[in-house]
Amino acid sequence: MKILTVIKIGGNIIDRPDELEVFLEKFEKIDGPKILVHGGGVLASEMADKLGIKTKMHQGRRITDLETLKLVSMVYAGWINKSIVAKLQKIGCNSIGLSGADADCVPAVRRSPVPVDFGYVGDVDPHQINTGFLLSMLGKGITPVFCAITHDRNGSILNTNADTMASSIAIALSRDYYTRLIYCFEKQGVLSNPDDEESIIPLITRVSYESIKASGVVRDGMIPKMDNAFFAIDNGVSEVFIKHASNLGNNKGTVLK
Amino acid sequence: MKILTVIKIGGNIIDRPDELEVFLEKFEKIDGPKILVHGGGVLASEMADKLGIKTKMHQGRRITDLETLKLVSMVYAGWINKSIVAKLQKIGCNSIGLSGADADCVPAVRRSPVPVDFGYVGDVDPHQINTGFLLSMLGKGITPVFCAITHDRNGSILNTNADTMASSIAIALSRDYYTRLIYCFEKQGVLSNPDDEESIIPLITRVSYESIKASGVVRDGMIPKMDNAFFAIDNGVSEVFIKHASNLGNNKGTVLK
Repeated sequence: MKILTVIKIGGNIIDRPDELEVFLEKFEKIDGPKILVHGGGVLASEMADKLGIKTKMHQGRRITDLETLKLVSMVYAGWINKSIVAKLQKIGCNSIGLSGADADCVPAVRRSPVPVDFGYVGDVDPHQINTGFLLSMLGKGITPVFCAITHDRNGSILNTNADTMASSIAIALSRDYYTRLIYCFEKQGVLSNPDDEESIIPLITRVSYESIKASGVVRDGMIPKMDNAFFAIDNGVSEVFIKHASNLGNNKGTVLK
Repeated sequence: MKILTVIKIGGNIIDRPDELEVFLEKFEKIDGPKILVHGGGVLASEMADKLGIKTKMHQGRRITDLETLKLVSMVYAGWINKSIVAKLQKIGCNSIGLSGADADCVPAVRRSPVPVDFGYVGDVDPHQINTGFLLSMLGKGITPVFCAITHDRNGSILNTNADTMASSIAIALSRDYYTRLIYCFEKQGVLSNPDDEESIIPLITRVSYESIKASGVVRDGMIPKMDNAFFAIDNGVSEVFIKHASNLGNNKGTVLK
């Protein structure tokens, strides 16, 4: 079975043009079919500030009202997505920028307004993903570059969590490929001591994950990322990596399997 | 030869959600392969005002500095493009939102800074358009929806005139299709009396165009549109229509051939 690599990058690297360029060069060098999923960055918050759009939160999670939806679609699907595609074209990686609405790639279901209305937020069912279109792109040697915007098939775009977008796409394609999912973020991996970047836990299995969670050493933000990772593994993805973007192409980081 | 319809809509219809919806329903009903190219709308100007980005002009033409490029890519490639795609998906038209950078569809050359530096503005050579990718989309029954953003193959996106984008795409595909190009705008067609919406000139040929231009009855803004139209006809496009968006699907308007 051919290997497919699905990589998610977050806002921290998008905000640093030099690091992004180095990352994209490493990304281009990955052999075989690959898909990039990108998050946001400070631009969305900066724009929100300038436009006077207030960030509404509920228990640490953003509420996407219509103004926020417009803003994130502009920043994510517009400037960031097209900038990344243009940079990849420059270095010989023929890529195509996509939202989930394009070619109906990634439909989503608007999250129920009960008990909390998160607004225009979409949850993705990996089984609804249009793998036919993605397989045809990959077959032509074209690299999809996704922003985390989906649609409800009822005329509205939706804001979706980028980690979930990446894991859903990886799951959907795991019937056709040996699929590796790589979460690039600002830390060296899952750390046993959050203050020590060298305390990388090299391997986490489902069993060790339970004890890691119980021990409380892993920071709050890592829990949903690891939950996503194990959900992907339980649903067909072969390996998940959590690592620093600068270590793409080497073995440094955490493997979950 | 199969008929391909390339339609360009401007900002005036994008700014009116009800009219846009009616237009998209008519667009969906067009038989055979089709491509939509959209312009901007007031959102870009509104956003520029709110963000304090000043519009720089030279002899009536906009200069695209980096801040303006960011803004237009956000508004055109982000919100407007993805909103249109989501609306088309709802009514059963499987569409894909594209900029010229995506799959290297429409590369452009940054306009020379001499004698006037228009900034990040790209001019398109129809012969450089990646028709292979567009033909494969059309062959799958997927409708491309283009914003007028291109790229320079050197890492930068560029702002491009939407009328030119539409005519260039129509020209490029005219070797494979009998190509009809339709410019939808806010008037009923080319008018012999600008104040009388019923004074539509039904047919303009290359010969009658010269006399119309010489007579001065046609308003300034129409001249580049008609120049674009005849450039398209001289380069393979079979027919060009200039008409009101509400008349898509009927014969009202001006035909150039």
